[in-house]
Amino acid sequence: MALRDTRIAILKVGAEIVRTKGFNNTGLSEILSRSGVPKGSFYYYFNSKQDFGLHLVDYYAGFLLARTEDFLMDQSVQPVARLRRYFAEFKQGFEADGFQGGCPLGNVSQEMADVSKGFRERIEAVFIQLETMIESCLKEAKSWGEVSVSLDERQTATFILNSWEGAVLRMKVTKSTAPLEVFEQFVFGRLLQ
Amino acid sequence: MALRDTRIAILKVGAEIVRTKGFNNTGLSEILSRSGVPKGSFYYYFNSKQDFGLHLVDYYAGFLLARTEDFLMDQSVQPVARLRRYFAEFKQGFEADGFQGGCPLGNVSQEMADVSKGFRERIEAVFIQLETMIESCLKEAKSWGEVSVSLDERQTATFILNSWEGAVLRMKVTKSTAPLEVFEQFVFGRLLQ
Repeated sequence: MALRDTRIAILKVGAEIVRTKGFNNTGLSEILSRSGVPKGSFYYYFNSKQDFGLHLVDYYAGFLLARTEDFLMDQSVQPVARLRRYFAEFKQGFEADGFQGGCPLGNVSQEMADVSKGFRERIEAVFIQLETMIESCLKEAKSWGEVSVSLDERQTATFILNSWEGAVLRMKVTKSTAPLEVFEQFVFGRLLQ
Repeated sequence: MALRDTRIAILKVGAEIVRTKGFNNTGLSEILSRSGVPKGSFYYYFNSKQDFGLHLVDYYAGFLLARTEDFLMDQSVQPVARLRRYFAEFKQGFEADGFQGGCPLGNVSQEMADVSKGFRERIEAVFIQLETMIESCLKEAKSWGEVSVSLDERQTATFILNSWEGAVLRMKVTKSTAPLEVFEQFVFGRLLQ
């Protein structure tokens, strides 16, 4: 395999393990042995574990941003319904995974935001991109008359995104969809009316 | 010092370090050297690092539950104002700490909920106690006519607590009070009307 392919293969395996075990709790040797890369060659692909971690944030971000765009920019669906489908899709995925893992971005936030400025800034940039896509969707919802004209799209996007992260965090602890259902009920039943 | 005092001294130092660095990322030797306990005597006080971690959850819980009770059961203040003061107090504390650490309960949730059933169950019990205190406060708010009679106190308590956790998580990344202010605005400006 080319250098780039092997790097992606390592990231793919690493993403799965880190999502459940956490970044600090995951040993490089476990990632390498599971991705079939000889021990000792890790530093051929990444400068350090931190460098690997930053690439991992980008890997997660790529997945999340593509999925968010697919759902929230889908012009064939009404804007509020897009948001509903978006969160429902994640809920279904979490249920299929037995509520393991949660949000990879939330996980690395919790674990790394205080440890490294590099991680913190990279993660914040992704949150802002997600927020901006939710904001756009809310702007469309307003132009369609689906939400109140007094709704502040940016602040609502921030509140929805952060509350979702909190609901997913709690889901990891309860191991049930209940926190996600409460989120849906308040966001779609109260906030976006 | 008696065995119990030394155990508490270790927990106190450990709580501070783990709050910023995370549980898995904190070495026992760092905790011991900073608490002035001879290396090697850790297992005299705790059975394992996991046992220490469970005691740490109880230590955090003791602090959080006492503080929550102080604020939310304070009969000299109107119920919704108690909730406002409660979250404002944490916000002030976070600001004073330079937004380091965040919520210790949220941190251990993110890091340990998928790793150990013992942690998960212990943490969920604390979340339920916090939720129940918020619920009681909302019941009082309803009886005072401060919130709508149609408000479901339990689900609202769940949503508020989880959304707060999400806002604190985001605060760790933005290193500003902005996510907490958006939380306050939606909870007190919209939800508890």
